[in-house]
Amino acid sequence: METKKLRKLYFRLSFLVLFATIGSLFGCDDSSDNSTPVTGEKEETPSENNNSGSATKAKYVFLFIGDGMSNAQISAADLFQASIAEQQDEDYINSPNSLTMTTFPATGFATTHDAGTYITDSASAATAMACGYKTLSGVLSMDVSRTTSYKTIAEAAKENGMKVGIITSVSLDHATPASFYAHQPSRNSFYEIGMELASSGFDYFGGGGFCESKYSGENKNQPVCRDAAIAAGYSFVNSRSQFDALSQESGKVLAINSILDSSSALPYELVRDKSEGSSDISLAEYTEKGIELLENESGFFMMVEGGKIDWACHANDAYSSIQDTIAFDNAVAEAVEFYNRYPEETLIVVTGDHECGGLSIGYSGTRYSTYFSRMRNQTMSFDVFDGTYGDLSEVSSLSELYSAIDSAFGFNLSGGGDSDMDLSEYDMEQLQEAFDAQKSGKDSNMTGDEFYDLYGGYRPLSVTLTHILNRKSGLAWTSYSHTGVPVPVFAKGAGAEDFNGYYDNTDICKKMSAAMGLSFIQ
Amino acid sequence: METKKLRKLYFRLSFLVLFATIGSLFGCDDSSDNSTPVTGEKEETPSENNNSGSATKAKYVFLFIGDGMSNAQISAADLFQASIAEQQDEDYINSPNSLTMTTFPATGFATTHDAGTYITDSASAATAMACGYKTLSGVLSMDVSRTTSYKTIAEAAKENGMKVGIITSVSLDHATPASFYAHQPSRNSFYEIGMELASSGFDYFGGGGFCESKYSGENKNQPVCRDAAIAAGYSFVNSRSQFDALSQESGKVLAINSILDSSSALPYELVRDKSEGSSDISLAEYTEKGIELLENESGFFMMVEGGKIDWACHANDAYSSIQDTIAFDNAVAEAVEFYNRYPEETLIVVTGDHECGGLSIGYSGTRYSTYFSRMRNQTMSFDVFDGTYGDLSEVSSLSELYSAIDSAFGFNLSGGGDSDMDLSEYDMEQLQEAFDAQKSGKDSNMTGDEFYDLYGGYRPLSVTLTHILNRKSGLAWTSYSHTGVPVPVFAKGAGAEDFNGYYDNTDICKKMSAAMGLSFIQ
Repeated sequence: METKKLRKLYFRLSFLVLFATIGSLFGCDDSSDNSTPVTGEKEETPSENNNSGSATKAKYVFLFIGDGMSNAQISAADLFQASIAEQQDEDYINSPNSLTMTTFPATGFATTHDAGTYITDSASAATAMACGYKTLSGVLSMDVSRTTSYKTIAEAAKENGMKVGIITSVSLDHATPASFYAHQPSRNSFYEIGMELASSGFDYFGGGGFCESKYSGENKNQPVCRDAAIAAGYSFVNSRSQFDALSQESGKVLAINSILDSSSALPYELVRDKSEGSSDISLAEYTEKGIELLENESGFFMMVEGGKIDWACHANDAYSSIQDTIAFDNAVAEAVEFYNRYPEETLIVVTGDHECGGLSIGYSGTRYSTYFSRMRNQTMSFDVFDGTYGDLSEVSSLSELYSAIDSAFGFNLSGGGDSDMDLSEYDMEQLQEAFDAQKSGKDSNMTGDEFYDLYGGYRPLSVTLTHILNRKSGLAWTSYSHTGVPVPVFAKGAGAEDFNGYYDNTDICKKMSAAMGLSFIQ
Repeated sequence: METKKLRKLYFRLSFLVLFATIGSLFGCDDSSDNSTPVTGEKEETPSENNNSGSATKAKYVFLFIGDGMSNAQISAADLFQASIAEQQDEDYINSPNSLTMTTFPATGFATTHDAGTYITDSASAATAMACGYKTLSGVLSMDVSRTTSYKTIAEAAKENGMKVGIITSVSLDHATPASFYAHQPSRNSFYEIGMELASSGFDYFGGGGFCESKYSGENKNQPVCRDAAIAAGYSFVNSRSQFDALSQESGKVLAINSILDSSSALPYELVRDKSEGSSDISLAEYTEKGIELLENESGFFMMVEGGKIDWACHANDAYSSIQDTIAFDNAVAEAVEFYNRYPEETLIVVTGDHECGGLSIGYSGTRYSTYFSRMRNQTMSFDVFDGTYGDLSEVSSLSELYSAIDSAFGFNLSGGGDSDMDLSEYDMEQLQEAFDAQKSGKDSNMTGDEFYDLYGGYRPLSVTLTHILNRKSGLAWTSYSHTGVPVPVFAKGAGAEDFNGYYDNTDICKKMSAAMGLSFIQ
């Protein structure tokens, strides 16, 4: 009973820390905004849309954005599934080919630099894909001077009579989904973003909730955005039964998960309640429901974001990233099922907005070998571990946590003996150092290059544990931020052939617009 | 005078160390060969060649292989050039678009796992591309049992009346070029590989030399492979004037650079003598000469390898990798010039065999910023630094090397003051640690996970210096080995459209064969 109470307390405290951390990592400051704009950016003219190959206009259009997902994230998910399929016989190679997105016939690369940096944030990346223009990090669908709004492809589709759906595994007012309906100088203007959602007129919002309550209006007395959406005619649902009951008669829909983390996002797929009839609705189910609600004679545009791939990668938690990538790919599979009904009129585009974490399928210590199946016994995402075991005020030594660590990450600390999951002397040194740092509270008073290099502003214990597990599996990271490699683009259906080639992320918007017959980019 | 003598001694000693290091890193042991073969690998049937889009047979075919080159290596080169083009104003973003390969219209991804591991070596990767079959690491164009030889696309082209050229910046008997003409259970059988080169009948070999003299025959009394090639009718040249004089009348040609490193490879592009008329011939010049020699009515197949991209990445020397990637791209530009003369009959395919080093465009310490121009003052590749300053027997403190380090890597150790190129306390700690390790000779007696993690079997001082410079520039690494992400494929010309999509590296061989009208894969 006491343990239970203690855990609750741990949870509350660590969520506070987690929120502060996530706030600073995912855009709750504007420090990335003060870069010099590119001269003449507004004068940029869209490249010609070579849509010659596409005879049929794309009537049903899906844009899937894996946030923080580039080739390494996709490969990690694919190779993990391939290695598991081979019953953990690690000497035996099973050809990786487990994902839906990599079966698409058209493939390209998109560069992701924004107007101020070679390493984009999610706001400028989503603006590029939503509007066809480069802008600065932190800016939502506005120009580099933060004064002129750009029309988004979702708004243009809506004006053209199509229905529009926006789905995400993070909060609906987060940078990526927001760029499709909001126009704000800062991605952190959650209240204003939420109010733009309410007035968007879009037909379906599904997934995470709002961050706005934390920032609601200057005097903190503004009506919350959810209420504004309801006032604007949205059917609001946040339970499994209400969700299942939604139909085309429901009108405009705002469907928010009843289970949300402290940042109003869906839980990581790794810890999602997957039991039958659970209220913890998957990204694939939000997508399937979107298709059911939006199908109509005038067509639809649907943006689906796998947003927590990015968050897991910021924290260097590879297995959580892998599970969220698989969940994202399952959502893509729902679109393919729809495509099979209307292959001539459906276009599916799958891409990432940028890489995150500098993930690679290879670590110096494991050299030419990988041991992906070693990750399969991780049972908690880093944040849940932090929430459960992160407060060390009543823990006096690392060994008291051995059993908890073993059950969360599949190690063999308490068992002794000789196992693949034993930790090396080097691992143990790092773990002890992390424990000491966290115990001393140094993690909340971070200083020094080395300290940041080791923990990146995350809690020392969990980030060290995921680092050790990842390295034992043959995966490693270079950063806690986004990185600058291009993202892959996969396309299938009407106009897909235009997505072959090496181009810019602004071209994704231009190519989709051309396939849809829209010409809204000035 | 004494300094000069000392430097010569340093050079000799360090080349011995370098050779031992490179030997162990690049295939001079068979440790990666003992994986369990994939059952039924030999029964694999080639996938259907969907060459429907290509009306014209590809008569002139180029396969460019950037060894160790995946998206990160390409982006690093592109972004470096973009940042330099902007006069080092690091706040101002210049759209990256400097490379020839990324302008190609067809783009795909190739998975690179081999029959025994998700992280391939160069032998099995080149076998996949040369023969269309998976094999084990270390094996050259033979099956997983190491008993059956596979015909290579170069041999099939030769049988079909086409001329064949093999060009590389490393030694001609190294795994990648060797896979196109040799069939050996081990990539380390340099003597046997060299003898297969001599008897190949191929028309042009250009670039690095032979390693065979170190392994020449069981009794060390076998004729050297070069002599065997001359006896087989090859015109052997190894000077600028002889090279320039080569013409179609020269018959079969073996053109080896007169300047080679201790592994019989061309020098890194960074330290190549680029003066007018220099004997240090570039990869682009070897390619241009190949075109001149091989052009004929029956067509040609030419494989060009940028092999030292990989070696630089093994050593985590980003700037050497960037310069070799640019040199490789310059060779691609030669092929494009030829393509412009015969656009209907030329096919150019550019790809990598695997990634190397887990390079990413992002480091935890530099977060969302990059400072690529900080690399431009690196004047030496890691191996030349080792050869010049690696022996510390007469150096008593790190500070004695400040001026040498500054001139080699562009730091500001001796200058003091306040500059972007000052080293942080954290950097200095690592540098001192590396100096101490190297000074104590610990680098030749490597033990411990941490030690390998830090230096990867390279000399502690140079690898630490490139790590520091790379991180200051916003680049970082996870490994000293290859990694398992897919490689990009760029294609242009006859049959290029078949290279769109996500497929296996064995499919590269199948797609090229289909474009060429060859059907040699069983």
